[in-house]
Amino acid sequence: MSDVCIYEVGPRDGLQNEPETVSTDAKRELIARLASAGLRRIEVTSFVSPKWIPQLADGDALAASLPDAPGVRYSALVPNEKGYQRFRAAGGASVAAVFLSASETHNRKNVNCSIAEQLERIRPVALRAGADGAGLRAYVSTVCGCPYEGAVAVSAVAELTKRLFDLGATEVSLGDTIGIGVPRQVRDLVRAVSVVAPLEHIALHLHDTYGRALANVDAGFEAGVRTFDSSLAGLGGCPYAPGASGNVATEDVVDLFERSGVATGVDLDALVDTSIWLEDAVLGRALPGRVYRAVRGLREREAQRAEG
Amino acid sequence: MSDVCIYEVGPRDGLQNEPETVSTDAKRELIARLASAGLRRIEVTSFVSPKWIPQLADGDALAASLPDAPGVRYSALVPNEKGYQRFRAAGGASVAAVFLSASETHNRKNVNCSIAEQLERIRPVALRAGADGAGLRAYVSTVCGCPYEGAVAVSAVAELTKRLFDLGATEVSLGDTIGIGVPRQVRDLVRAVSVVAPLEHIALHLHDTYGRALANVDAGFEAGVRTFDSSLAGLGGCPYAPGASGNVATEDVVDLFERSGVATGVDLDALVDTSIWLEDAVLGRALPGRVYRAVRGLREREAQRAEG
Repeated sequence: MSDVCIYEVGPRDGLQNEPETVSTDAKRELIARLASAGLRRIEVTSFVSPKWIPQLADGDALAASLPDAPGVRYSALVPNEKGYQRFRAAGGASVAAVFLSASETHNRKNVNCSIAEQLERIRPVALRAGADGAGLRAYVSTVCGCPYEGAVAVSAVAELTKRLFDLGATEVSLGDTIGIGVPRQVRDLVRAVSVVAPLEHIALHLHDTYGRALANVDAGFEAGVRTFDSSLAGLGGCPYAPGASGNVATEDVVDLFERSGVATGVDLDALVDTSIWLEDAVLGRALPGRVYRAVRGLREREAQRAEG
Repeated sequence: MSDVCIYEVGPRDGLQNEPETVSTDAKRELIARLASAGLRRIEVTSFVSPKWIPQLADGDALAASLPDAPGVRYSALVPNEKGYQRFRAAGGASVAAVFLSASETHNRKNVNCSIAEQLERIRPVALRAGADGAGLRAYVSTVCGCPYEGAVAVSAVAELTKRLFDLGATEVSLGDTIGIGVPRQVRDLVRAVSVVAPLEHIALHLHDTYGRALANVDAGFEAGVRTFDSSLAGLGGCPYAPGASGNVATEDVVDLFERSGVATGVDLDALVDTSIWLEDAVLGRALPGRVYRAVRGLREREAQRAEG
């Protein structure tokens, strides 16, 4: 049993921001290891055009051959009806994830249309997902601030959240895309959103660009949110490359909760083993997760002492 | 006016953990820049034996020639009576900082005696500081956990804090030396300490080893603490070298507070300018602070756009 849900987005949101494309076999092994570590919700790929995200061009093949993991629900990103057709044809994932921004400029830069138009693109996907019995996760980005417009009103995020649930979303994930939020703001945001939707259907998707992700996770938890998106070892982001995604690391969130007496159901050592494998055998570059790096360092020093 | 006090420890706690020894002139310039950025309390050096900390062997010369900065109080680490004599002879700093651990094993590994013996070493320093009208800051380390003993009881930290104030401390800084603490624990700790001492005389000294420093800063602030130790750009620590100090970065604390509507009195841009100078012209290695790296990255991309 667990008190919180850690929603792993590394295979999708992490790998789509890595410079190297990872083989389908390695992705499958990554997902199997994540499920085996106790993660129960994993976003595995994207059905966005391979032109835009070549790293996930194997989405159809991967989704069709996902590890059989009892109790695990897989999701995949679906930009529009065409993407939804691929999602259904591939099978494997049972949750379609749609996305839009809370700020007009960011939405337009990302998907080349207004927020209202994006909601109209989501509508047929939501209808089909509802008819098919698939889950519908909706990502709202820039909820704590926009790189083009600056401040984003809490009321605008709450209104958009309401619209997404009205359209048929089963879950809304609120993303601090540029990592600019502070705990006070997260508390205000959660309070405003709780008026339009039950918090058990709300997730927080927090980036660590300014080192505040865990402060914001803690604030979100204290305010009543129980689902937190994260990426294994901070996959897809790098503290030394400020343009990168900067997803909070799964190990960091798990360790924060477990040391706070909040059960995650996730095995931290198995996550670290997976991150070591991913870093050494697959990506060949250092991953930024703080707990991962600290635990790996401690293990290496213990091994040296044992040898010496 | 400011709502919180950011206590800069970079010149001492940062530089003593850097592999390279920095020149006295560069240290003086660093301190002048920090004061000019609005920091009002700065720990400048240590009078521990140069055998142990060669990076700060110029403590006497530096303390004797500190920048004249109205309203700024300088402190220096003082391990014993002999250190206090050097501190007084050099002048410059008006606060003597003593230290001990909340866990016996860590205290013994650090200063080769028991906690009770260390308190007896502090006693004459406290008496002389009191007679001289100097401030006495006492650092208590391992307050959230010990690398050798594991858990450290909140009650033990509170008891030790009481003893330090009884000895004559004017301020006690509680250090999470290994960065293991979580917000819940910090709240418990602050509550326990507030029973034995007014919180205006308590500081938190939080390390970011597991990425939780800002979550703990936020928890400490919400619990009533108003003084937070930090190190410019995370000086002295590195996320990729887990053995390193890992002080929370001054820029990260300042940005957290300012974006939360809490005035620090510190100019973030001036801090970033100072970190760029320190990284490029003095140390020649990347500093880990998150806000520093993000702001520097944004500035560089803006400059590229302006050129392109």
